[in-house]
Amino acid sequence: MGTKTTSKGARTQQAILDAALGLAEVEGLEGLSFGRVAKAIGMSKSGLFSHFKTKEELQLAVYEHAVARFGAAVVQPILDTPEGLPRLWHLCESWLDYAYGGVFEHGCFFTAVAAEYQSRPGAIRERMLRGVVEFNVILRQVISRGIELGHLRPDVDVPQLAFEVHSFMGSANSGHQLFGTTEPLERAWTGIRMRLLGVLTPHAPTLPGLQQPRSRGAATTTESPA
Amino acid sequence: MGTKTTSKGARTQQAILDAALGLAEVEGLEGLSFGRVAKAIGMSKSGLFSHFKTKEELQLAVYEHAVARFGAAVVQPILDTPEGLPRLWHLCESWLDYAYGGVFEHGCFFTAVAAEYQSRPGAIRERMLRGVVEFNVILRQVISRGIELGHLRPDVDVPQLAFEVHSFMGSANSGHQLFGTTEPLERAWTGIRMRLLGVLTPHAPTLPGLQQPRSRGAATTTESPA
Repeated sequence: MGTKTTSKGARTQQAILDAALGLAEVEGLEGLSFGRVAKAIGMSKSGLFSHFKTKEELQLAVYEHAVARFGAAVVQPILDTPEGLPRLWHLCESWLDYAYGGVFEHGCFFTAVAAEYQSRPGAIRERMLRGVVEFNVILRQVISRGIELGHLRPDVDVPQLAFEVHSFMGSANSGHQLFGTTEPLERAWTGIRMRLLGVLTPHAPTLPGLQQPRSRGAATTTESPA
Repeated sequence: MGTKTTSKGARTQQAILDAALGLAEVEGLEGLSFGRVAKAIGMSKSGLFSHFKTKEELQLAVYEHAVARFGAAVVQPILDTPEGLPRLWHLCESWLDYAYGGVFEHGCFFTAVAAEYQSRPGAIRERMLRGVVEFNVILRQVISRGIELGHLRPDVDVPQLAFEVHSFMGSANSGHQLFGTTEPLERAWTGIRMRLLGVLTPHAPTLPGLQQPRSRGAATTTESPA
């Protein structure tokens, strides 16, 4: 096979995964069927079988596809930002931008999968748990580096701070998915800011948005109905 | 129809709803079918139709059944507790006991439904959103009463504190569902405690667990794999 064919194969695979991820955002991963994916991209089921042998293989590939999007949107961008507090702040920004920026078309894929596999043991649940742990490790590492560099106080409880920041992120995401308002985003930012301001040292670099925040879209804040 | 018949009908209805809720915890509400519910309780489909005319009617009844369990486990118990800080603390306790106490057999029903109806408009999504708002209103009211009674500082940002407490609750719940460890519960308690200790007045009553916490099951804390 020449390069052209391989490239075409890779493009087809991407198109399959894009379509399957779009379906999974609505229907979940369990609801994914070869028939529906084939129909969504105008391909025969046998054509689809040449890319994925089993439903589970397709499901796991869709999960990896979503993880790759998450990595490209949330994790990759922070690697160019200076370590310590700036990178921690950027991680919060890229995560919240991701949640509110419509990376997924029909709702949060990871929320859907987490709920779907709460009590379904197997390869997909294991992969999902590994993904949750991996992000938590990144968050804790970025915080720890902030302590090492003297930006955050040495007595910071790293797993606790990671838990709290991640809780605000999760709440902002679910609030957004449910109500479509920006209020949960504002509250998450306030929570993260107050938590970080409480643990900064005098050596922490000044960041726009943290020590002297601009109002984040206050003019367009939409209230949740409560 | 005599009382006995009515009572039997009510008992049957409860048995149907118990079984349907058990199925919905695993399969979600969309996956609920008359056939599966009928099979689960050893009833004919036509027998089931005499209780619920449509799938949506059954789904909404299952949702109300879950809300009733939540109310009995989380909200009812706090009404006997003195208003203000004691009631707020009790609400956090009853919520976290509920999340960790196995009210639901197969995972958190509300997590499953929230994920399932992220992007499915209709009566079930509307009912679900109303439930989220209702709990948020209760939490805000309990906090506000704590301010009125002089237990919490008058400058407390009520919606922000409610958001943060609820974020920790949600994170503890999802962490428990995913990993089955008590670490998220401990972290949620620490987060709630620190947040409340930061806004108490000298008039706040002393609560066991808040100002001088016993270690909550520290001997049996199980670490999450991160």
